[in-house]
Amino acid sequence: MPKKKIMKCIDGNHAATHSSYALTEVAAIYPITPSSNMGENADEWSAYGRKNIFGEQVIVTELQSEGGASGAVHGSLSAGALTTSYTASQGLLLMIPNLYKMAGELLPCVLHVSARAVAAHALSIFGDHSDVMACRQTGAGMIASCSVQESLDLGLATHIAAIRSSLPFIHFFDGFRTSHEIAKVEMIDYEDIKKIAPYDEIREFKEKAMNPDRPVFKGTAQNPDIFFQAKEASNSYYDRAPMIVEEAFERVHSITGRKYHLFDYYGHAEAERVIIAMGSGCETIEETINYLLDKGEKVGLIKVRLYRPFSAKHFMRALPASVKSIAVLDRTKEPGSEGEPLYKDVSTLLYERKENILVVGGRYGLSSKEFTPGMVKAVFDNLKAREPKNFFTVGIEDDVTFTSLKYEALDTVPQGTVQCKLYGLGSDGTVGASKNAIKIIGEETEMFAQGYFSYDSKKSGGITVSHLRFGKEKIQSPYLITDADYVACHNQAYVFQYDLAKNLKKDGTFVLNTVWSEQELESHLPASLKKDIARRNGKVYIIDAVKIADGLGLGQRINMIMLTVFFKLANVIPFEDAVKDLKKANEESYGRKGKEVVDMNNAAIDAAAAGLKEYKYDCESWLHAEIKEIDIKKVHEPYTDEAEKIMVEDIVSTIARLNGDDLPVSTFAYEDRGMLPGPDGSFPTATCRFEKRGVAIKLPKWIAENCIQCNKCAYVCPHASIRPML
Amino acid sequence: MPKKKIMKCIDGNHAATHSSYALTEVAAIYPITPSSNMGENADEWSAYGRKNIFGEQVIVTELQSEGGASGAVHGSLSAGALTTSYTASQGLLLMIPNLYKMAGELLPCVLHVSARAVAAHALSIFGDHSDVMACRQTGAGMIASCSVQESLDLGLATHIAAIRSSLPFIHFFDGFRTSHEIAKVEMIDYEDIKKIAPYDEIREFKEKAMNPDRPVFKGTAQNPDIFFQAKEASNSYYDRAPMIVEEAFERVHSITGRKYHLFDYYGHAEAERVIIAMGSGCETIEETINYLLDKGEKVGLIKVRLYRPFSAKHFMRALPASVKSIAVLDRTKEPGSEGEPLYKDVSTLLYERKENILVVGGRYGLSSKEFTPGMVKAVFDNLKAREPKNFFTVGIEDDVTFTSLKYEALDTVPQGTVQCKLYGLGSDGTVGASKNAIKIIGEETEMFAQGYFSYDSKKSGGITVSHLRFGKEKIQSPYLITDADYVACHNQAYVFQYDLAKNLKKDGTFVLNTVWSEQELESHLPASLKKDIARRNGKVYIIDAVKIADGLGLGQRINMIMLTVFFKLANVIPFEDAVKDLKKANEESYGRKGKEVVDMNNAAIDAAAAGLKEYKYDCESWLHAEIKEIDIKKVHEPYTDEAEKIMVEDIVSTIARLNGDDLPVSTFAYEDRGMLPGPDGSFPTATCRFEKRGVAIKLPKWIAENCIQCNKCAYVCPHASIRPML
Repeated sequence: MPKKKIMKCIDGNHAATHSSYALTEVAAIYPITPSSNMGENADEWSAYGRKNIFGEQVIVTELQSEGGASGAVHGSLSAGALTTSYTASQGLLLMIPNLYKMAGELLPCVLHVSARAVAAHALSIFGDHSDVMACRQTGAGMIASCSVQESLDLGLATHIAAIRSSLPFIHFFDGFRTSHEIAKVEMIDYEDIKKIAPYDEIREFKEKAMNPDRPVFKGTAQNPDIFFQAKEASNSYYDRAPMIVEEAFERVHSITGRKYHLFDYYGHAEAERVIIAMGSGCETIEETINYLLDKGEKVGLIKVRLYRPFSAKHFMRALPASVKSIAVLDRTKEPGSEGEPLYKDVSTLLYERKENILVVGGRYGLSSKEFTPGMVKAVFDNLKAREPKNFFTVGIEDDVTFTSLKYEALDTVPQGTVQCKLYGLGSDGTVGASKNAIKIIGEETEMFAQGYFSYDSKKSGGITVSHLRFGKEKIQSPYLITDADYVACHNQAYVFQYDLAKNLKKDGTFVLNTVWSEQELESHLPASLKKDIARRNGKVYIIDAVKIADGLGLGQRINMIMLTVFFKLANVIPFEDAVKDLKKANEESYGRKGKEVVDMNNAAIDAAAAGLKEYKYDCESWLHAEIKEIDIKKVHEPYTDEAEKIMVEDIVSTIARLNGDDLPVSTFAYEDRGMLPGPDGSFPTATCRFEKRGVAIKLPKWIAENCIQCNKCAYVCPHASIRPML
Repeated sequence: MPKKKIMKCIDGNHAATHSSYALTEVAAIYPITPSSNMGENADEWSAYGRKNIFGEQVIVTELQSEGGASGAVHGSLSAGALTTSYTASQGLLLMIPNLYKMAGELLPCVLHVSARAVAAHALSIFGDHSDVMACRQTGAGMIASCSVQESLDLGLATHIAAIRSSLPFIHFFDGFRTSHEIAKVEMIDYEDIKKIAPYDEIREFKEKAMNPDRPVFKGTAQNPDIFFQAKEASNSYYDRAPMIVEEAFERVHSITGRKYHLFDYYGHAEAERVIIAMGSGCETIEETINYLLDKGEKVGLIKVRLYRPFSAKHFMRALPASVKSIAVLDRTKEPGSEGEPLYKDVSTLLYERKENILVVGGRYGLSSKEFTPGMVKAVFDNLKAREPKNFFTVGIEDDVTFTSLKYEALDTVPQGTVQCKLYGLGSDGTVGASKNAIKIIGEETEMFAQGYFSYDSKKSGGITVSHLRFGKEKIQSPYLITDADYVACHNQAYVFQYDLAKNLKKDGTFVLNTVWSEQELESHLPASLKKDIARRNGKVYIIDAVKIADGLGLGQRINMIMLTVFFKLANVIPFEDAVKDLKKANEESYGRKGKEVVDMNNAAIDAAAAGLKEYKYDCESWLHAEIKEIDIKKVHEPYTDEAEKIMVEDIVSTIARLNGDDLPVSTFAYEDRGMLPGPDGSFPTATCRFEKRGVAIKLPKWIAENCIQCNKCAYVCPHASIRPML
């Protein structure tokens, strides 16, 4: 009798740590965004006494840097402990020297990497494959996951493959997009992992460990006479590895029912145009292929799962014989190279085999740049062109060197998926509430759920946008929501700052948390927002959550109220069920803090339902609204010079309005150093003066007669807006 | 009127530092073999007040690691100083994060790298391209030099190109083979460099530097909205770079007359088989091509000088239209990759252009493994095969995975070149004497000279072999001497240990420094050596240099004596001239130490000439010598087990006899961990007990009645041979 499936809503980091913890004895860590949670999970689980499949608590130890962490991994493996680390970006770069060593010494290290951009013209904590690609020459194996479920499944397979092949492996998935996406996945029970663990090879590994009773000489220095021969002595380990990885995938299949191959083909059986890619982008491509197949297009995708060792044989087997043209997508950029790494791998082996398939390569998604179905279609369309563009970019507008493909929006999200977009203020509880919603819907019902949270770099006090999807069909769509059934704005000030309704679907619901009365709303709402809503025939609801929370003694914590509003309006599950679940969750969350707190939160649920009002606007008047708005551009006139005007009107205001994606390459290629953004990543200073956000609910007031001139106000102001003068 | 050429005998490190110092204001260093001398040269020159072309002493500062050095380079460039560093191997790996930053920020850093293997199964301080290849994705430009002269010329061009293109550059040349080869080169005068220095761009660079009067915001963090666009904003810098490098080569040409291109073709105008390579191997290939052209073969070579940015256009222009097959040689290994980097670059661009040229790739010369004309011929021969081997190795015997090409010895050194091989004991002065010989011949005559010195890893007390070439024709041959006109053994114990005469030419000269009388010589010389000499009809000379040195008060310093012997017998320049030059050199070297020391050394010259004796052996009896030799293999019987027997007889004795190059791959692929060398680089312990070297001239004797049992002897013995017992 098949065991009951355990479904959970977790993020990619949690998934990878879950699998990793099972087969790890020692984890040497130095947390770095976005991989930090993996090290933190392992640390926490270990502290709470969780056991790996051998019945041991994992020893988690934090080093002084990623260089030290990788050194500790090397040492721990030499001593015979199954050892793991978690890292990304510059952290991974610092591990490169030890990766060479571990590969040379045939040590089965596993690094789980939530792949992230490498700092160059600017730092970015967001996802792409620049970091892992900087390791492809070290001799480490590399396995790529495309989704949270795969981070769990292939994360497990990677450990098995590493141990059985005696090679270090990097298991990677997209930083933030996968590492921080919450998805409903089927968990893997440690009891099942025990059934497929490679005990024989673990014993052999431990027998080879350093031991004073069986001394062996390691870490030698070799001279020109023998180094080269010794370097070739491990070739057979690499020759065997693809077969071993395939077998590891099969073991995972045996306990999960989910089947993976070194290269997985998806698409038309006689595809003529094929994309080759790795990571979360594959999910978008797959979703777009479904759409294009319906239109009768012969398109397909090869997902590269085992990137190193690269098995040409398996690749060719996965490629349909009908293919006429290929686009290889790399989520990295290597300036000065004629094409990116995966493109070269593919071109080289097709040249070896004297194939006559047209191949072009392109870059996408650097630093978590959105990669959407519209872009995928553009890539396929490019392959139809008489002379397909090579070395292209997709997802941006390159108006300087003209590498970019043009694309248009395309909606391929399965019918019936409910999409919700919640605008919150960092630390107002919106993200936490969104996660609760996912948990309730994903874990208490049969529905699928997905959550992704974009933060700006201001963190606490900055904007957060929660993107939630729910539906009866499996959800892929690893990109932000552009067609929302439900948009909630939890901070009134945002109506002036952001185009809140630009992603609202026709007949969608728009909720505003506001202190305004209906009259005030009518007079204060900016014309652009009114027009956006009216054009879409949106329904408008308002609630004064701040007042309700204040009244209940919840202070500024409006999360429970807005969560209730979500369940009331978003129509994902029956509201009565939701209220029951919410109250159950309150009991679980706050029970320890006493009945009073539980009651207060339960009261918030009831008050929210009562306080919510639909605002019936006059569609005609909103469509033609012409209220003079406060325009950020105008506030700053007159400008010191033309550069400042460009900086304010074209650049800062666009970025501040969350429309930075629309800026073309030329915006960053000015040679007026210090005046405008330069190709070296330089920016003019003091641009925050162009961005008045007005997000505070309360404002401080200086009371002259109380001031003793201690100057502590200047000291505590994080933005240096209060400056003492002599 | 053309200026008089200044010819000097210097090594590659000196050459690179000479050019680099001219255009450097700050050097942040952390010396690592084999690049240390560059940092040390710069440091020393700066300390002695040498000026760069701007009339400044270079500020040389040593950091705590290569990571810190690269950080300091980044900071110094940001502050507007022309900044340089020198590194290799793991040191370079630690600079990778900052290379990304400097590329992103368009900073004209120059790293001079004496390219070295990266530690994996074992560490190696010797040369290959593993380290620089680990940087090819960073966005740094990469320029390769093939010889000492090129390290001077292209080292200079690299600085000019970096400044003019606003990009960081790595200038690399082969560790040890070029960095430590002494060759006669034409120097570049700083006055000439002033004529071609890019003053305008230097001014622009300094104007862009950080300056409180012109503040600019650098090192920002960018979010998904703008990072990708900003990353593409520097494309045109890379597009322009090849043209700028070409122009830099042209500037160097204008003051030196030596012409370089991004890709230099050498060989038959209608070549059908072409090798593509980088670094010192190109010199060997060129020399072999000369030989093969004489035989009527249509072969050629493309030397890759600008590796990054890789200009496909320039590459295709350099490739003869007649080419039918190409072998791409990479001096690196990336386990798990289908082919090495340069091979992929070439295959990819030929696929793009729908070419129908057969391309194979191979590895050679890892960790300074010899790369000889015989191997080059094997690579060309492979291209003639019906199905040329791909992913081959050359220079070793791979009897496990069968990647290796078979090759035979081939002598392509120009006729008339005198080749000398001197065996010395580390710190006995042989290497110093050899360098003096090169200096005297190379700088005082019109002849060309080359010196390369192989050390073993025991350093002081280990063996040194000096390889010297002299001739009227230009010397390339960046490989060890296998056909010596003159072989000198400066340590008598070596006759039992090494096959001293195996590389002696027919009718060549063999000199032995020995305390033996002629009778003792006849009875002690091992049969194998006698046979080797007699078969070649070698002339044998003996001298008791130790006795002469002792008598003159020179202690163990036999270098002046053996140098005199060299000039007397090697027949490179008239002996009388040599004596004059030697005495002049003594005056220069020891003048400061007083007349007595000078006289002592001059006396050594005269005594050497007098003490040298030819030993006329009986050729017939030597050819049939059957003296029972002390056989290192036999000393250790009985063996503990079969593994120990293999270890002693097949492995340690072969390596100790300097024949490690003959060991095949299988020698290092045993899976009997701890018993025999494994594919993970492991070795059995305590193998030095199998290697009795007997190199000491004097032996300590324990005098029981004097011993007070202080145990200090155990403390000072570096080899732990004296062990106190309770």
